[in-house]
Amino acid sequence: MAKVTYQKLFREFERVLLKSGFSKTKASAIAQIFTNNSLDGVYSHGLNRFPVFIDYVRKGWVDKNAEPQLVKSFGVIEQWDGQLGPGMLNAEICMQRAIELAKKNGMGCVALKRTNHWMRGGSYGWQAAEADCIAINFTNTVAIMPPWGAKEPAIGNNPLIIAVPRKDGHIVLDMAMSQYSYGKMQEAELKHEELGFYGGYDDSGSLSRDPVAIRKTKRSLPVGMWKGSGLAIMLDLLASILSDGQTTGDITQSEGETNISQVFICIDPELNSNYENIANKILDYTKDAQNIDGDTVYYPGEKTLRTRRQNEQEGIPVDDVMWQKLMDL
Amino acid sequence: MAKVTYQKLFREFERVLLKSGFSKTKASAIAQIFTNNSLDGVYSHGLNRFPVFIDYVRKGWVDKNAEPQLVKSFGVIEQWDGQLGPGMLNAEICMQRAIELAKKNGMGCVALKRTNHWMRGGSYGWQAAEADCIAINFTNTVAIMPPWGAKEPAIGNNPLIIAVPRKDGHIVLDMAMSQYSYGKMQEAELKHEELGFYGGYDDSGSLSRDPVAIRKTKRSLPVGMWKGSGLAIMLDLLASILSDGQTTGDITQSEGETNISQVFICIDPELNSNYENIANKILDYTKDAQNIDGDTVYYPGEKTLRTRRQNEQEGIPVDDVMWQKLMDL
Repeated sequence: MAKVTYQKLFREFERVLLKSGFSKTKASAIAQIFTNNSLDGVYSHGLNRFPVFIDYVRKGWVDKNAEPQLVKSFGVIEQWDGQLGPGMLNAEICMQRAIELAKKNGMGCVALKRTNHWMRGGSYGWQAAEADCIAINFTNTVAIMPPWGAKEPAIGNNPLIIAVPRKDGHIVLDMAMSQYSYGKMQEAELKHEELGFYGGYDDSGSLSRDPVAIRKTKRSLPVGMWKGSGLAIMLDLLASILSDGQTTGDITQSEGETNISQVFICIDPELNSNYENIANKILDYTKDAQNIDGDTVYYPGEKTLRTRRQNEQEGIPVDDVMWQKLMDL
Repeated sequence: MAKVTYQKLFREFERVLLKSGFSKTKASAIAQIFTNNSLDGVYSHGLNRFPVFIDYVRKGWVDKNAEPQLVKSFGVIEQWDGQLGPGMLNAEICMQRAIELAKKNGMGCVALKRTNHWMRGGSYGWQAAEADCIAINFTNTVAIMPPWGAKEPAIGNNPLIIAVPRKDGHIVLDMAMSQYSYGKMQEAELKHEELGFYGGYDDSGSLSRDPVAIRKTKRSLPVGMWKGSGLAIMLDLLASILSDGQTTGDITQSEGETNISQVFICIDPELNSNYENIANKILDYTKDAQNIDGDTVYYPGEKTLRTRRQNEQEGIPVDDVMWQKLMDL
């Protein structure tokens, strides 16, 4: 696997985006988000996802020129319409607006309808943390898992992001509601490996670690089974209700995964000048628990930061096939 | 198992609370919460937990006369001090305050430090939903699970409650971060049953469905393993930071599970007059997914409501031993 510099990857993304008709400003902003995702080791939503994004643009599912619009507001909550523009720009703008609301009112919420895939949800958690803010963000998605008690998909993986700012490294959880994403299952399949833990059901209705069997039945497991199934339903409810946007069911009945709903809740922790110490105390206590031999307790975001530092120094790993695809775009 | 009327159970709780020195108003309010918990089928935090609560009062860990006080505020966020009073009253008052903030500002947050166990977290979700509001509530707790990568407990089960109001039955998720509570494992042990799914690790470090083995190692599983471990850490961070209160580590190092931290976030969905229809659409879509033979998809809160209706008609089941304990108090 080759490695490239941040600038090189960024310039290639930007080149393709300009060629696809994005304005200079938008091309640059989108290229930065994709590059940062690969930099942070989230290749599935960096380089490896970029061709899909360009395909969506070509199909007209992502409107190159659209910009999000405020629909209405009530106190510290605002409803925005993403106008089916690029999901990552819509998300960045709405997160920024939620940060402004929080800095002024302690807390703010922006609910966004008619947007597109934000790629890595964690991006907007890191964005809030960089602004010294707490974020609670989530999105709905196309249905990919059966709800608990069913055997056909009807709930999304609806990632939930929670971020807490910290000088020595922000704490950022980026958690989809599926135990394993289809991307992870595909990776395991390509390596002819079993999943580390049960990831779904096989044909006979038994719990399975075989990615091939699970991808066939489409019966992947929600995190914590009935619990994650319930949480996925709640996040779809909140996202669709607050934004007045499409539900997982609506999205699933469309041709592509477009016109989705998201929520950005932001809290300014300045009420507690001591928050940094409390955060450190919690991380120390958690990491100090006696580790399993050969294992380590990581706080959410710790590995991301480590990968970022490593990729900054050594270059960003790029899959050869995907790199070639990017060159050909 | 005997059944008693709501009034009978309520009056017995009230009698013991008055005898324990609570004011008439407080005794009545606390008795109502415990009775409602049993009415809703959450016996573990209704009758079956009541003697523990009275024991905490006698030990002085719960201050009979304390009332929560506002410490400071910033915009729509308020910090309250529970003064180590009864946790369920503190929670009810703070949820009510968050509802007021939301009705006025679209959204509000009350963070509560120095409080006690709120019993069933779901109670305050139902409370918000009854006021036509959305709630996102959580608490930290004593450490009961190892974080992912460790073998000794250092994270709490930190229940997360999300509630959405709906005329045909509120949607209320009440989800602890452990796959199985110690209460559920004890139930299985008493019935000489295995858990339905892996609940933790045994002595040899293998995943296990044996409640006895798991209770021995204290290595119970977080929901979704590494994911629930991360979420438990985030909820402890938010609860402790926003309230400026004790962390799971602090609580664990104390004698009893007292002086804990909680958060009540409330959102008024009135920005979207169509929210009821969206909620119904999501529930219909989810429940319509082809069910597993002999199984049913339930929405969060559906079973609770069904049990409530049944217990209203047929009486509230009470464990004979626990009922006798209550009589003897």
